Amino acid sequence: MTTAAKTDVKGSYDRLMALSKEAALLGTCSSLLHWDKETYMPPGGAEHRADQLAYLSGLIHDKMVDPSVAGLLARCEGSRLAQDPLSVEAVNIRETRRAYDKEVKLPKRLVEELARTCSLSQQAWVEARRDSDFKKFRPWLEKVMKLNREKAECYGYARSPYDALIDDYEPYETSGNIAKVLDGLQRELVPLIQRLAAAPKRPDVSILTRRYPVEAQRELGRRAAEAIGFDLDRGRIDTVVHPFCSGMGPGDTRITTRYNERFINESFFGIMHETGHALYDQGLPKERFGTPMGSAVSLGIHESQSRLWENFVGRGRPFWTHFYPVAAKSFPEALGDVELDAFLHAINAVEPSHIRVEADEATYNLHIVLRFEIEAALLSGKLAVKDVPEAWNKRFKELLGIKVPDDRRGCLQDVHWSFGHIGYFATYTLGNLYAAQFYARAKKDVPGLEASFARGDFRPLLGWLRKNIHGHGARYRAGELVEKVTGKPLGHHDLIAHLKAKFEPLYGL
Amino acid sequence: MTTAAKTDVKGSYDRLMALSKEAALLGTCSSLLHWDKETYMPPGGAEHRADQLAYLSGLIHDKMVDPSVAGLLARCEGSRLAQDPLSVEAVNIRETRRAYDKEVKLPKRLVEELARTCSLSQQAWVEARRDSDFKKFRPWLEKVMKLNREKAECYGYARSPYDALIDDYEPYETSGNIAKVLDGLQRELVPLIQRLAAAPKRPDVSILTRRYPVEAQRELGRRAAEAIGFDLDRGRIDTVVHPFCSGMGPGDTRITTRYNERFINESFFGIMHETGHALYDQGLPKERFGTPMGSAVSLGIHESQSRLWENFVGRGRPFWTHFYPVAAKSFPEALGDVELDAFLHAINAVEPSHIRVEADEATYNLHIVLRFEIEAALLSGKLAVKDVPEAWNKRFKELLGIKVPDDRRGCLQDVHWSFGHIGYFATYTLGNLYAAQFYARAKKDVPGLEASFARGDFRPLLGWLRKNIHGHGARYRAGELVEKVTGKPLGHHDLIAHLKAKFEPLYGL
Repeated sequence: MTTAAKTDVKGSYDRLMALSKEAALLGTCSSLLHWDKETYMPPGGAEHRADQLAYLSGLIHDKMVDPSVAGLLARCEGSRLAQDPLSVEAVNIRETRRAYDKEVKLPKRLVEELARTCSLSQQAWVEARRDSDFKKFRPWLEKVMKLNREKAECYGYARSPYDALIDDYEPYETSGNIAKVLDGLQRELVPLIQRLAAAPKRPDVSILTRRYPVEAQRELGRRAAEAIGFDLDRGRIDTVVHPFCSGMGPGDTRITTRYNERFINESFFGIMHETGHALYDQGLPKERFGTPMGSAVSLGIHESQSRLWENFVGRGRPFWTHFYPVAAKSFPEALGDVELDAFLHAINAVEPSHIRVEADEATYNLHIVLRFEIEAALLSGKLAVKDVPEAWNKRFKELLGIKVPDDRRGCLQDVHWSFGHIGYFATYTLGNLYAAQFYARAKKDVPGLEASFARGDFRPLLGWLRKNIHGHGARYRAGELVEKVTGKPLGHHDLIAHLKAKFEPLYGL
Repeated sequence: MTTAAKTDVKGSYDRLMALSKEAALLGTCSSLLHWDKETYMPPGGAEHRADQLAYLSGLIHDKMVDPSVAGLLARCEGSRLAQDPLSVEAVNIRETRRAYDKEVKLPKRLVEELARTCSLSQQAWVEARRDSDFKKFRPWLEKVMKLNREKAECYGYARSPYDALIDDYEPYETSGNIAKVLDGLQRELVPLIQRLAAAPKRPDVSILTRRYPVEAQRELGRRAAEAIGFDLDRGRIDTVVHPFCSGMGPGDTRITTRYNERFINESFFGIMHETGHALYDQGLPKERFGTPMGSAVSLGIHESQSRLWENFVGRGRPFWTHFYPVAAKSFPEALGDVELDAFLHAINAVEPSHIRVEADEATYNLHIVLRFEIEAALLSGKLAVKDVPEAWNKRFKELLGIKVPDDRRGCLQDVHWSFGHIGYFATYTLGNLYAAQFYARAKKDVPGLEASFARGDFRPLLGWLRKNIHGHGARYRAGELVEKVTGKPLGHHDLIAHLKAKFEPLYGL
């Protein structure tokens, strides 16, 4: 290769990355607008906010499909920069190609319409949920489904439009593979849940709904977040109705939670969960911001980090060996007479319930099976939007054995569809599965891992995650990452093993 | 004119306004980034925030100098749309021309560098002020002055580079005219301040520094803001170090304040002041957002609204006739034994002091004279940045008769220079002067105006402001507006008359 050609390749690559960084910069502006919308924006700002978000999404689209991108990519691909497929440059080229090939198929009008519709439909959903009135949300969900169907058709797909949408959240994943994994999981979960339901030892969950003053919850949550590694000089914790974590760019990672004086789990495990996301965000290589090598692999891998800290760490005995004395001191009225064992069983109660985000580790995945099936049916046209409540309630009863009392506690409980996120839900269970595999591996790799938790030291685990997962950005595809780190493909065995190992002794089985 | 030509003109105008709205939409994104920077952003986000703001300022610049603008303007100017100079279209064309002719002279590099520098220099200023160490801020102020000088040279000017910069904040105004007005004002102010200093009756200002619990301040401030008309469904009040008001687009106007348990004035009059700005913002024609006809006239006119509510209403006897019983109930410990008259005199104490934002209505303007002179000297090169503290302290002593104890209470007290705002300060005194003229006129136009305040009814004044000022957007230039509304050009007589009428009886003169 001549020096001129080399320069050309390097220049093309640099230009490609510059465009990627510009899109990312705009993306972080958009993140702040979203965050503000959920936290502090007055109601009067909703319409203008939708305009802003739509406009920025159009600008981001323009950057991603800049007319120069195809040529730049062509010059980089097959060049020496792409030779080692795991090099920074090769990964950035590969993932930029992937993003470009998808984005270029979307008309800008659709991108903007999706952003505007979803910003407004979320407001409609808030009201519909508040009033438990599906009719108020129905026209918005119909529009969301129509736009998502259009998006799937633009992308194109081999087997099902659902695949095209899932790929936005979990790249390289398919609905067929997810269905297979969910099926295997479900087959082992349902009998386990039934055995636990019939077990002789029962938890006293009433201790979780005693009075937990909000200020003390706030303080304990912050302490826990900092203890596991959340750097609050580069982050925040705010209060919202629907908790989330959002990266605003390097040095600014924000989580949100909600407080319920009569239920400690909501804020505490919410904070542990979102902090898991935040630790991933804070662990991405800052200097690669705005390129795939500075980005998360997928939502499933992101969720594995939140689940790992929420459930595998945060609901485990080692964590509470250190933290329970702190918690008991924070809530003398609620926990003064409660032993660690009783508390541990209570926060690990397995019990079918209506609200996904409050579900236990075992039944949670059945909530996802339900959503996955309904989304697939909506997309394929087998289910009409108007029939969602009926279908939801029927299948919920089959899967979880309890009746849905109203749509607020049924098909209106989640914010995702109002955001236009069709294909997102499956990543939650993928996250649980990945988390189980990662955690099992971390325990093998790091001797005395859980003993360190009992001493209040979470650095060994965070260090392992930084090295094996966070630091790689999007170098590996999700499936590759899980195989590389754990030596096994995605499966349900580690999760089932974890659930059995935890719940059977708690329930005296 | 043929139908085709008519369509062409209308089409050109519409396209021009569409570009203006796009720039404004980006401007409101930038406003949120600024607001968040001051309110909630964690320290780690500062660098990336500077990148975001610089990038957006470049995009806004691109929109404003879009290659199509010159042609579009040319087709609109001299067309039937521009015939009536006060029509919506003519004003929008006039002001778009003005903005274009200025912006097109700035290289994008300079626009971005100003935005980035000012975002970062503000962080440096925070530290310098905290440590009262001018050396820490000096290199930044030097850079800010250099960039501002470059900006002034790009704009061009007839007499002085200061004129070019002032025009950014107070369009169509000149440093010569401001100097003349300040001079006239100063000549009457200084003897008045001296007479008050020698007056027999003294206020007991110690009552203002008793204990005022922050929660009660927050509540009273919110009540006052709502009472005078701030619609909190379309706005917010947050806590910051350096209070400001910011419009985030139609339906979202945010003010900020700071609370000091030992000084009621800071939050209360701060809120009254920022609410004055907010009422202007909320009173602009929403449907004209993003065009000059939906925008404020100038910072001076904006400031007239804040000063009017803060001082002419908020420090007046009629306002407190209604509000004092409320305040006394809010602060039983501090105000339980204080009569209305004593309170009124205390909040209207005239006393030379170091901090501009805490200065009384009379001495305040001398703080502006000082800054105006120093800015002019810095720009002309008569004063070097390194000599600012000395020059500040010397002139401060001459103007206000007291010594500056340290730079924190001297030349480091204001945020403006760190923001790169050179030419801004004069608008504060212009605001005082406009406010005095508007208020005198409103009292003539609306019989029983102050009697309505005493009943807690501020709608007559807000209605008058909406009709005469807010509703016009940028239809009139500032000088035109004040003449149209008050029948007189800008002058210092109404302000001096107001100060004498208020202070002489309070001080027993």
